[in-house]
Amino acid sequence: MALELITLPNGVRVALDPMANLETAAVGVWQRVGARWEAAHENGVAHLFEHMAFKGAGGRDARAFAEAVEEIGGVMNAATSYERTSYFARVTREHAGAALHLIADTLLDPHWAPDDFEKEKDVVTQERGEARDQPDDHVFELHQAALYPDQPMGRPILGLEETIAPLSVEALTAFRAAHMAPERVLVAVAGAYDRDAILACAQERFGALAPRPVLAYAPARAAAGCAREARRLEQTHLVLSWPAPPAGDEALYAARLMCEIYGGGMSSRLFQEVREARGLVYAIDAFIDALEDCGRLGVYAGCAARNAETVALMAGDLLAALAREGPTARELARAKAIAAASILMGAESPMGRAEARVAQVFLRGRLIGFDEIRDKLNAVTIEDVRRAAELAINGPACVAVIGPKSGLAAADAFHARFAQGR
Amino acid sequence: MALELITLPNGVRVALDPMANLETAAVGVWQRVGARWEAAHENGVAHLFEHMAFKGAGGRDARAFAEAVEEIGGVMNAATSYERTSYFARVTREHAGAALHLIADTLLDPHWAPDDFEKEKDVVTQERGEARDQPDDHVFELHQAALYPDQPMGRPILGLEETIAPLSVEALTAFRAAHMAPERVLVAVAGAYDRDAILACAQERFGALAPRPVLAYAPARAAAGCAREARRLEQTHLVLSWPAPPAGDEALYAARLMCEIYGGGMSSRLFQEVREARGLVYAIDAFIDALEDCGRLGVYAGCAARNAETVALMAGDLLAALAREGPTARELARAKAIAAASILMGAESPMGRAEARVAQVFLRGRLIGFDEIRDKLNAVTIEDVRRAAELAINGPACVAVIGPKSGLAAADAFHARFAQGR
Repeated sequence: MALELITLPNGVRVALDPMANLETAAVGVWQRVGARWEAAHENGVAHLFEHMAFKGAGGRDARAFAEAVEEIGGVMNAATSYERTSYFARVTREHAGAALHLIADTLLDPHWAPDDFEKEKDVVTQERGEARDQPDDHVFELHQAALYPDQPMGRPILGLEETIAPLSVEALTAFRAAHMAPERVLVAVAGAYDRDAILACAQERFGALAPRPVLAYAPARAAAGCAREARRLEQTHLVLSWPAPPAGDEALYAARLMCEIYGGGMSSRLFQEVREARGLVYAIDAFIDALEDCGRLGVYAGCAARNAETVALMAGDLLAALAREGPTARELARAKAIAAASILMGAESPMGRAEARVAQVFLRGRLIGFDEIRDKLNAVTIEDVRRAAELAINGPACVAVIGPKSGLAAADAFHARFAQGR
Repeated sequence: MALELITLPNGVRVALDPMANLETAAVGVWQRVGARWEAAHENGVAHLFEHMAFKGAGGRDARAFAEAVEEIGGVMNAATSYERTSYFARVTREHAGAALHLIADTLLDPHWAPDDFEKEKDVVTQERGEARDQPDDHVFELHQAALYPDQPMGRPILGLEETIAPLSVEALTAFRAAHMAPERVLVAVAGAYDRDAILACAQERFGALAPRPVLAYAPARAAAGCAREARRLEQTHLVLSWPAPPAGDEALYAARLMCEIYGGGMSSRLFQEVREARGLVYAIDAFIDALEDCGRLGVYAGCAARNAETVALMAGDLLAALAREGPTARELARAKAIAAASILMGAESPMGRAEARVAQVFLRGRLIGFDEIRDKLNAVTIEDVRRAAELAINGPACVAVIGPKSGLAAADAFHARFAQGR
């Protein structure tokens, strides 16, 4: 068995990634649909649609559906982001085909009883409350709204009370009718499975999906936003961000190594300077968030309110220094070693591997060998990394802060120094 | 290569778990030491000791140590619980021996500069703030204090401001001298590695550990506690708990299946009744927390304040029903299928596998084959599960609630009905 990407006659794709010596598989269906495609008045519908997958499907009610999944020892879940919705299961080899049939039921033969729909709105209300109660989660929502004002990318994936309450079962039907284009559907399986059973299921269930136009969305427009929210907390929680290459851009290889050097692991500049040398934070991390047409280099940190301004300005200044001087040869070598090892570790997990294949297919249109990725990373130069940091520091930068009132001025100080680039 | 447990002449143990077809390993040293061994005035010292591992070791300062780890592409971390402290790395095959040497440095040749020690106290203060800011984290600390009043098991692992501030480098030295008994040290490696390199390092570094008495701790005494904390939040966060078998007890097999049936996956009674049928919660889960001499069946839920009492009482009543009627044959079959699949999935991850081996050695004194575990689970009967639920509902039960004032009465209602058992 070998890595394969098969395109069915109607355009649905199937990515198969067999892994030797395993006994389990990750099986899923990914759709290129999410909150980016929502109109303002229906904010939250993509996520609610995903939730309704578990309220019954294929002639089974919610309880019977859950039982069918767990009778084969399966663990099933689903998730919605701005550009993707996923329905996936972890199962043993012999049940991979059955798991795919169950997932197909949720997408192709769901039961949307109006009663269940109203109850699921209540569940989502609780999910929204849970997210708001976690400051290191909520600060990301604040940041997203400040970064992408008045556009789908800035709206919460979970939706708002006022956009979810009026949604009807008809809205779900319309959402599905609009977005179930075969080209936007990808079946992905990694691990141990019966190839014939998977292909038969994919063809039988998804091969019959009728053609539909592939809907576009408006491009994201990033703003130099600045958001603050006062809350009685022990810590001040900050998210800072700068431009980065979008997903699928070759410049992302250098940007990922830059991010590692800047604030990845424990030898990174942010960790060493802000945590080890100064003791100002417990958590500080840099990350790349790369979407189809927009990417960001982000930093999350939590610190005492009296240190929030210092932490925010240090983070900006350390990025500016990297853009000015570039990394050392040893920093770059370390980042490459970490990236190479991470690729190997990720490749040993069925779920990690399935998700990597999905990203490759949706963003690059093809499967990419781990060797190719390693070669691209190894080819990155000191100057490439410096330029990636320069692209970032040239702004626009965005900042969101939540915490005690006395720490909120950190947002303004950061905004004044970094918002419009250096 | 085969699964091996090797005991060095001084009593240090080495668990080796080779996995075919992998290219990476999980490498670590686990110590049977944690917050349970702390005196009240030094609460937090075990965790702070673990933090200091990364402030320099083996002739390297903190930065040089972090660089040495990441130059080989390693990802290293550490963790402290009530009964265990772990130092572990994920690395590629060829660096497994080097990673173990670095971990040995942190334990056997650490640098504890007083300056660094003071800075690390500040980092821990931030870590404590971060934990307090997460209500679904903090509610567990409240619950632990209510369950185990005036004893080490009820004190926070991260310590208190007043117990951490006066700690000195001498306290670290004394803590290490007291607790570094060879019998309490376990080197564990799972995945792909050079057996000779691992054994040579284990023998060279840990084989020289001098004998020391293995210190005991006072047994845990569970109370029917009831804790409430008012906080302006969207949700009311609840933790409920009942007795369960301790780790190492054969009755734990039945208790784990009971927990799965009661509140494990999406076909469980808690999920189906409280979330699916009523829409009262987004998150509700049951779990088993099994320690050396004490175990608990716990439930976490987040809900609207007006529903907190309903959720808490439903959770108790559903457990009481399970204790009265036992599970159905189909429920038990599903729980066994899920457990069997979970064992296979866990066995495919080097880190999951290393941690399973550590638990086996510390709690059972031997390595246990996955077949034996599966057989024990398969032998569990309907009556075994019913009795596990009965053991739980007979109490004492404990409850902690955090959230808006209007939801706190849920704690009292639960306490009145369940605290002293049925």
